[in-house]
Amino acid sequence: MSQLLEAGAEIFELAGVEPNPRHTTVNKGAAICKKEGIDVLLAVGGGSTIDATKGIAAAAKYDGDDVWDLVSRKAFVTETLPIITVLTIAATGSEMDGGCVISNTDTNEKYGYFAPDNHPDVSFLDPTNTFSVSAYQTASGSADIMSHIFDVAYFSKGGCMDMLTRVQEEVLKTVVKFAPVAVNTPDDYEARANLMWASSWALNDFLYEGFNQATVCHAMEHQLSAVYDITHGHGLTIIIPRWLTYILNEETAPVIKRFGVNVMGVDESLSLMDGAKAAIDALSAFFFDTLGLKSRLSDLGIDDKSFEEMSKTACGQNGVLHGFTDLTPKDVEAIYRMCL
Amino acid sequence: MSQLLEAGAEIFELAGVEPNPRHTTVNKGAAICKKEGIDVLLAVGGGSTIDATKGIAAAAKYDGDDVWDLVSRKAFVTETLPIITVLTIAATGSEMDGGCVISNTDTNEKYGYFAPDNHPDVSFLDPTNTFSVSAYQTASGSADIMSHIFDVAYFSKGGCMDMLTRVQEEVLKTVVKFAPVAVNTPDDYEARANLMWASSWALNDFLYEGFNQATVCHAMEHQLSAVYDITHGHGLTIIIPRWLTYILNEETAPVIKRFGVNVMGVDESLSLMDGAKAAIDALSAFFFDTLGLKSRLSDLGIDDKSFEEMSKTACGQNGVLHGFTDLTPKDVEAIYRMCL
Repeated sequence: MSQLLEAGAEIFELAGVEPNPRHTTVNKGAAICKKEGIDVLLAVGGGSTIDATKGIAAAAKYDGDDVWDLVSRKAFVTETLPIITVLTIAATGSEMDGGCVISNTDTNEKYGYFAPDNHPDVSFLDPTNTFSVSAYQTASGSADIMSHIFDVAYFSKGGCMDMLTRVQEEVLKTVVKFAPVAVNTPDDYEARANLMWASSWALNDFLYEGFNQATVCHAMEHQLSAVYDITHGHGLTIIIPRWLTYILNEETAPVIKRFGVNVMGVDESLSLMDGAKAAIDALSAFFFDTLGLKSRLSDLGIDDKSFEEMSKTACGQNGVLHGFTDLTPKDVEAIYRMCL
Repeated sequence: MSQLLEAGAEIFELAGVEPNPRHTTVNKGAAICKKEGIDVLLAVGGGSTIDATKGIAAAAKYDGDDVWDLVSRKAFVTETLPIITVLTIAATGSEMDGGCVISNTDTNEKYGYFAPDNHPDVSFLDPTNTFSVSAYQTASGSADIMSHIFDVAYFSKGGCMDMLTRVQEEVLKTVVKFAPVAVNTPDDYEARANLMWASSWALNDFLYEGFNQATVCHAMEHQLSAVYDITHGHGLTIIIPRWLTYILNEETAPVIKRFGVNVMGVDESLSLMDGAKAAIDALSAFFFDTLGLKSRLSDLGIDDKSFEEMSKTACGQNGVLHGFTDLTPKDVEAIYRMCL
């Protein structure tokens, strides 16, 4: 703040952007921009702050007065205010893409959109700014990084490019190597730097060209954090191993085993099915033992009373989540129950 | 052409951009732009065509009438015409960066510059457009891709990020795996696609954050192609193994051996020095046996009569090439002689 004021900037602050940022907060920010004629937006924070700022940047240039029109595709992002970010946690990758996820607590919806014009103009990635991130948020953010690679491309059917599959594995290995270091030694520069760059890569199109992109675990998790306001990355760790177990079959096993062998050190000589199971076990052990995250939804105070409705919402209007294997609301509900 | 004309575009063609594109050709293109009020430049070709187009885009908006002012930093690129590229060979990475290299045959100079505004606005990367690239140009282009990783970052001292070192190795392995396939089976889509994306990655800043960037082999090769107009990628294959041999010592050996083990399949149990030597041998065998490129400057009709002058020019005004180890004109001349 003092640096900006010294430089002669006039500042209007919107403090208190919540995790899973809300459309009402975004609308408040956009109203300030319109009233005060703001020139540029500065997001100092993590994915929630940056996503809210993207929503504000778009809504400030939108004729209507509700960003939810843009999130729900009633209208499209055509123009935005410039965005500068100072990243303070390695997790979402929002610092280097055009996407944002906004929550509507009136309707219990949490959706994202991508717009090229919503890409930050400049992002400052200084690993020392993440030294103060707690062990819990470091673990959750690291899991979020992995989840992007899993969910967008790695665990998918069809289309792939050999180079990118192997690079995705290297980014995953980076998290497996450095997340435990950062959890235990928060001021380890090397660990924080590697996690920060892994974050920016893991939700970035250059890593996924030619892949059938899908995000079924994110669709399932968005319902959890929309209804229960839990930490996104933690919710994903609970879902992913159960999802892999649920979809494990002869067709999916080769990819799951490959992940185990190339990323988690699973013994290559195991059979396809045993290797895939060992891969899922190794991932669970990493999330719940090494990173110390609680492994069950019930640990987060979540029971099954909304599962049926959440499963329907997660599958959207078409009633199906397309992905590695397609999931119906019934499948999603079964996976939620495995997570209890 | 017919597609563009059908779409109602008015076209002014600058055919015959030469390999190692010349400043006189660029100036000719810029003059057309100024005279005809060109709106957008379309580069259909490889690195030479795209680099020439970048020079034209900058020179067309420059007050002076010689692009060499921009290449030689007498003036700086401030504004450019928009650029669209259709890539037809995987090699330089110019399709996804802001750099270009221009040759001045009046002065036997070949220099590059980077300017953010010179970045192509859109690049079409269709692997089928590279099916017709000859075995020789496929081999030279593939070597060029590897050389960018070697020369910009991998073989350097100091600064590094673990994730990026390993990703650089994956891109190198991609070339080692797919270049021979493309040389032998020119219409192999998977090989061409992987090489194309490797090309775009290999001279791209996202792969090198935190590294001490240097380009000593490119400085040495630019003298060769400036004076003798040889194929850039081929020139690099001749230089790189000799350079590595020349600079091999206790300090450089760990990185060279690591390359051998992780990329070329060299036996990890070898001693540091033996492992590094085996790495250099494996690289030479890849360039000269597997890819079938001629291994000596004398094979390209180059003798030693200009070596002294070329060595001085390569080292520039400061008389030293900073890199993995610093090189003086004497060192550069010794390396040229090893290549004869």
